[in-house]
Amino acid sequence: MRMYDIIAKKRDKNILTKEEIGFFVKGYTCGEIPDYQAAALLMAIYLNGMNDEEILFLTDEMARSGDVVDLSGIDGLTVDKHSTGGVGDKTTLIVIPTVAALGCKAAKMSGRGLGHTGGTVDKLESIPGFRAEISQKELIDIVNRIGACMVGQSGNLAPADKKLYALRDVTAAVESIPLIASSIMSKKLASGSDCIVLDVKVGSGAFMKDISKAKKLAECMVNIAANAGKKAAAILTDMDRPLGYSVGNSLEVCEAVGVLKGHEKGDLYEVSAELSTHILMLESGKDHDECRRLVDEAVSDGRAFEKLKEIVSAQGGDPSFLEDTEKFKKANFSSQIRAERSGYITHIDSEKVGTSSVVLGAGREKKSDTIDHSAGIIFRRTSGDRVEKGEVIAELFSNDKEKINEARGIFLSALEIGDERPEQLPLIFGVVCR
Amino acid sequence: MRMYDIIAKKRDKNILTKEEIGFFVKGYTCGEIPDYQAAALLMAIYLNGMNDEEILFLTDEMARSGDVVDLSGIDGLTVDKHSTGGVGDKTTLIVIPTVAALGCKAAKMSGRGLGHTGGTVDKLESIPGFRAEISQKELIDIVNRIGACMVGQSGNLAPADKKLYALRDVTAAVESIPLIASSIMSKKLASGSDCIVLDVKVGSGAFMKDISKAKKLAECMVNIAANAGKKAAAILTDMDRPLGYSVGNSLEVCEAVGVLKGHEKGDLYEVSAELSTHILMLESGKDHDECRRLVDEAVSDGRAFEKLKEIVSAQGGDPSFLEDTEKFKKANFSSQIRAERSGYITHIDSEKVGTSSVVLGAGREKKSDTIDHSAGIIFRRTSGDRVEKGEVIAELFSNDKEKINEARGIFLSALEIGDERPEQLPLIFGVVCR
Repeated sequence: MRMYDIIAKKRDKNILTKEEIGFFVKGYTCGEIPDYQAAALLMAIYLNGMNDEEILFLTDEMARSGDVVDLSGIDGLTVDKHSTGGVGDKTTLIVIPTVAALGCKAAKMSGRGLGHTGGTVDKLESIPGFRAEISQKELIDIVNRIGACMVGQSGNLAPADKKLYALRDVTAAVESIPLIASSIMSKKLASGSDCIVLDVKVGSGAFMKDISKAKKLAECMVNIAANAGKKAAAILTDMDRPLGYSVGNSLEVCEAVGVLKGHEKGDLYEVSAELSTHILMLESGKDHDECRRLVDEAVSDGRAFEKLKEIVSAQGGDPSFLEDTEKFKKANFSSQIRAERSGYITHIDSEKVGTSSVVLGAGREKKSDTIDHSAGIIFRRTSGDRVEKGEVIAELFSNDKEKINEARGIFLSALEIGDERPEQLPLIFGVVCR
Repeated sequence: MRMYDIIAKKRDKNILTKEEIGFFVKGYTCGEIPDYQAAALLMAIYLNGMNDEEILFLTDEMARSGDVVDLSGIDGLTVDKHSTGGVGDKTTLIVIPTVAALGCKAAKMSGRGLGHTGGTVDKLESIPGFRAEISQKELIDIVNRIGACMVGQSGNLAPADKKLYALRDVTAAVESIPLIASSIMSKKLASGSDCIVLDVKVGSGAFMKDISKAKKLAECMVNIAANAGKKAAAILTDMDRPLGYSVGNSLEVCEAVGVLKGHEKGDLYEVSAELSTHILMLESGKDHDECRRLVDEAVSDGRAFEKLKEIVSAQGGDPSFLEDTEKFKKANFSSQIRAERSGYITHIDSEKVGTSSVVLGAGREKKSDTIDHSAGIIFRRTSGDRVEKGEVIAELFSNDKEKINEARGIFLSALEIGDERPEQLPLIFGVVCR
């Protein structure tokens, strides 16, 4: 078998076999197939697509390219959620304790933040003492004992995907449904959970800029999960505006705690509650309305918040920071963003907001960067709101005074203020299940 | 400007600007743009194409990436021919002396053979004493004195094309009209001649397997030449069968000499005469029939053969080998290929014939391989001929006895014998000019 022939076959719109896909993934991962041949094949896949079977083969091959987590030591069905990546997306901090409070078992593995989106593990590490690096044995113990654990992802989870993603990222081959779906699902399959709910983001801040493409991506991922013997559903949610009002690690933890304490009932609660509902539906087989009622109850009676404290304690974190979020260290410097004119906020570019937060210190441009847990952004107004000239729209926080000016410039370029109230898009566009 | 954005633009079927194409070609040639990004762009170009302007920009940029030969020291219009690559194609050895005998000025630069096709310079070097590596000053002197000179191509002619071609060759991005046309024409433009006749091969042994694609390639190349201020025409010729009856260096020189002495009037003469006619038409402005008559005369009265001897002598070669081709050293070993059954030769796969000749020693698999000038193949029967079982179809020659058996196997797999006389395709499918 020759890589040349595999490239030529896909270039000519033919269907690759399981053996050919295996040859490519194994050969590229071990370094026998050079980057330039892989780049040519990825562009051919981007432009000519893959059918359902090819996507399954590719996902399966990448899933088996490194560690495959064995969760059979956990009693009952294990659940997982995944977001395709959003700015200010702290739903995991709400969803996992909520479903654990309702009896689900969640061994949640998350990547760290890179580029304009943040990582769940980075957010949790803003809580003093919190340990995200936990052995597999301890992970299973904690899940069996209290229902959930939130840890960093193994460095050797789907290494084929890691290498291919890095190449796609520099060869303009990211926004392809077969490649995104197989990339995400290879890690989910390797993570070992039985029930998977996917939060597929739609809009300017997401991979998928329009709903029909997002729906295709969702269907593709649910199909992969089903073929691998997993239960799965996907929810299409809006990413034309940042989710919730905060971006940045400890700032997002505080916001999530506010939701779990029942203080906040906005967009963030709604998305988190629907994700939790669909996880519970997959796990329990109960219908949507009953599951939603159970979720609402678990939050409103404080069980979900108690569960978050239990999880944090079990992983070495200090739960008193959750009881009193005023204890989180504040950034030394802040700067208010005021409306330059009166009107309606017609658009907030999520990607630029994310980039601005990285400049403030809340994220990483390179893997080796360290994170300033107190840096970030708090929105006082959001998309669709009416603002008067000079009114505060947001506040930026950092421990690096010089970075604030740079971040202000990026943030301002993310804002659009117009005369007409913008059409309000729904927060949740739809659900895909099998 | 970022290479990423250029890849994304072509991926999305947009048109690249002169500046973007320049950024890519310069950056790739100097090593600033890595192979994997170039491979992604080439595949996007392969699949999404280029418009006429983009092709002109790409050709021009590659032509100017290295040495540009200055032929202004030659009196009168200079002429050139180019073949898209054929097995057993020795037309240059006939065409250049013929048009020089008719007053054209030809500073012919040729690449060396690599893979299944041979190079003109390798063929000429089978004549004892012949020097193909000649300074530019001496080249111009010889052309001014006797009308033609046939030399090796400068190592630094269109280095961008050389690097891009090597990458296309391993990433399945060769058979693309914009990429083939710009590759060929970048070298032709850098070679500096005023009138260019292109021999575009069609069929199983060629880049272009069907006539409509070959016609598009021809139109594209003639268009590039015209836009660069050159006179050009292209002839579409058959490559479903090897041209003439010999493959291999001294064997092909002997066959070409036979044609120039007027002993052979078959396909090889016909293609050579038409190529010569179109060169003369471009150079002189005279019509086809008059030019063809002049060409036929120059061969039949021996002036073309005399001119070949003059050229060879001027470049240090011993012309007595042309007077008496029996002087060429014969290979030590030979082997006859006999028909395994009676019937018609329905197909001869030119590429396999070429590969077989490389195994015999007549060509190079790698650049560093040395050539056995006496090795090769002589056909006794060709496509469309009736053969009886046991009849000799061809004879293989080599100085390496062990290689003959390997070459026999490849050669036999190139032959098809069937019951029905195959449809005889025309030798020349058409002419493209502006």
